[in-house]
Amino acid sequence: MLDKTLAELGESESLRLTIGRLSSAMNVLVGPGDDAAVVKLSQESFVVTTDTMVENHDFRLDWSSGFDLGFKAVASNVADVAAMGAKPVALVVSIALPKNTKISWLTDFADGLNAGISAFAPEASVVGGDLAHAEQVFISVTAHGDLNGLTPVLRSGANIGDVVAVAGTLGKAAAGLDLLFRADSATSAFDDLVSVQLRPQPPVTAGVLANQAGATAMLDISDSLIKDATRLARASEVSIRIDSTQLQGFEAVLDQAAQRLGVSALDWVLFGGEDHSLLATFPSASPIPKEFKPIGTVLGLGSASVFLDDQPVEDKGWDSIRG
Amino acid sequence: MLDKTLAELGESESLRLTIGRLSSAMNVLVGPGDDAAVVKLSQESFVVTTDTMVENHDFRLDWSSGFDLGFKAVASNVADVAAMGAKPVALVVSIALPKNTKISWLTDFADGLNAGISAFAPEASVVGGDLAHAEQVFISVTAHGDLNGLTPVLRSGANIGDVVAVAGTLGKAAAGLDLLFRADSATSAFDDLVSVQLRPQPPVTAGVLANQAGATAMLDISDSLIKDATRLARASEVSIRIDSTQLQGFEAVLDQAAQRLGVSALDWVLFGGEDHSLLATFPSASPIPKEFKPIGTVLGLGSASVFLDDQPVEDKGWDSIRG
Repeated sequence: MLDKTLAELGESESLRLTIGRLSSAMNVLVGPGDDAAVVKLSQESFVVTTDTMVENHDFRLDWSSGFDLGFKAVASNVADVAAMGAKPVALVVSIALPKNTKISWLTDFADGLNAGISAFAPEASVVGGDLAHAEQVFISVTAHGDLNGLTPVLRSGANIGDVVAVAGTLGKAAAGLDLLFRADSATSAFDDLVSVQLRPQPPVTAGVLANQAGATAMLDISDSLIKDATRLARASEVSIRIDSTQLQGFEAVLDQAAQRLGVSALDWVLFGGEDHSLLATFPSASPIPKEFKPIGTVLGLGSASVFLDDQPVEDKGWDSIRG
Repeated sequence: MLDKTLAELGESESLRLTIGRLSSAMNVLVGPGDDAAVVKLSQESFVVTTDTMVENHDFRLDWSSGFDLGFKAVASNVADVAAMGAKPVALVVSIALPKNTKISWLTDFADGLNAGISAFAPEASVVGGDLAHAEQVFISVTAHGDLNGLTPVLRSGANIGDVVAVAGTLGKAAAGLDLLFRADSATSAFDDLVSVQLRPQPPVTAGVLANQAGATAMLDISDSLIKDATRLARASEVSIRIDSTQLQGFEAVLDQAAQRLGVSALDWVLFGGEDHSLLATFPSASPIPKEFKPIGTVLGLGSASVFLDDQPVEDKGWDSIRG
């Protein structure tokens, strides 16, 4: 096992092996494995999460400007804070850049960080960072959230009978990525989809609202609806039934682009990553915040973790190591 | 200015320009520019700092094992937490690795993280992380500290008449680096110095002790005694006089290695980086914690920021961008 490579083992298994070797301490309320960790101080707790983007693996410099990358780095990290039901309060940003990078690229990146913070977490700011030198661009952001006395919403709390709901877009970021790969006149016709890929629009304030409304489980849809629903189902030891008729609204806004590219809009909705929307479960008797749209129901353990109507759906999605 | 490259402008100036574009928020008690930032939650505050190491810039894989790098990543970050007078409580670790990296390298790295935590911050743990894929190894750690009700010790609080003191080693890490570059039989004769380069030994518990003892200013000596003393002097709007006779103990332990390589032990002590020791100032009337050795005095603004006896000493040290 230890002689295998990262590519052979994949990200999840490599991380599992690594984390298994780390000892945990008393002050950790929630450790690795959820969207973010929860650290206990003397009197209160904070939420912390990190995400790294690497040139030519997570982005291409010919598609994304420095501004886009700053914006996306903030969006993807504050979405993880929101997925714990917390409010983002502070970010630290590490960036490594080639020596010949123009200062204007770096200031554009800083402006993108600022714009992302203004958009999603106006009460937060970048409190620290590090600038290093490398042959490819690396961007690593760590974001912190304040629970303001609320209990964090984990992946593991879903109960049978709960309503499954989504806040934010589904499939738009994946459609945008396919359009960028196609790179023909289709791209410009669907600027709104490309824009979600380059500058995601996570529903950050919906995270605290879901927490206040009694959400039993929640996570950030970064890899795909199906992959992340599978994670939530496994962590909660339940299965999830998604109702295909309730996805029609998400498909409808992608139909034109899907026809143009000759692909399935439903595939984008089910298997597309990087929307950074929120998937949550709510007790069926409670009112659901208006930012969330019901898409299914929590069932007991079954023959699969996730069903689309009555069909098991395979957990396929983005693995950043195996690609 | 914006057309210049990072290499032309250097790290400090590039960072200054970038940070200048970021807006700050109400919940930030201490923003970028000190060893760590201080973030205010509803009831209390925490300290946060980040540091990034990049292959072939900050380390070489033929010199450092995965274990060494995990250990060093913890050491350098908890030293920054200590330099604020706080106790490290949690770390998040992002690492990017080539696809063909063996899993055994990654588990060795995890063991090094664990060993670093056991050595310097046994009450802390790694609470989260991210594993990505890249062509070169990139390690970014963010460390968090609990102030337990104490006020953070900034760089800017030194007062005229204060005693300047150091906890930890001076010049050993630089001597170790020179020995590694020389790579002859001399290296094995001075394993203890090479070891400080590969696995630094920051005096982490001395940070909280200095805070409790009323330290007026403190920082982590990551770049060099002179460079970091200059930073402290400038932030505090004072000058610092270092007494060369008080450095003799630091020189003595380097003398043999310096003679072997035909270099100056004093140069290592003054201009060597990566010891991650603590430089602090204390009111002259207070007792100084035994971990700290007095090396000089705080004076008023003068013709230079730092003097060695009566001679101004130039701020030369490590700039991770210009190299």
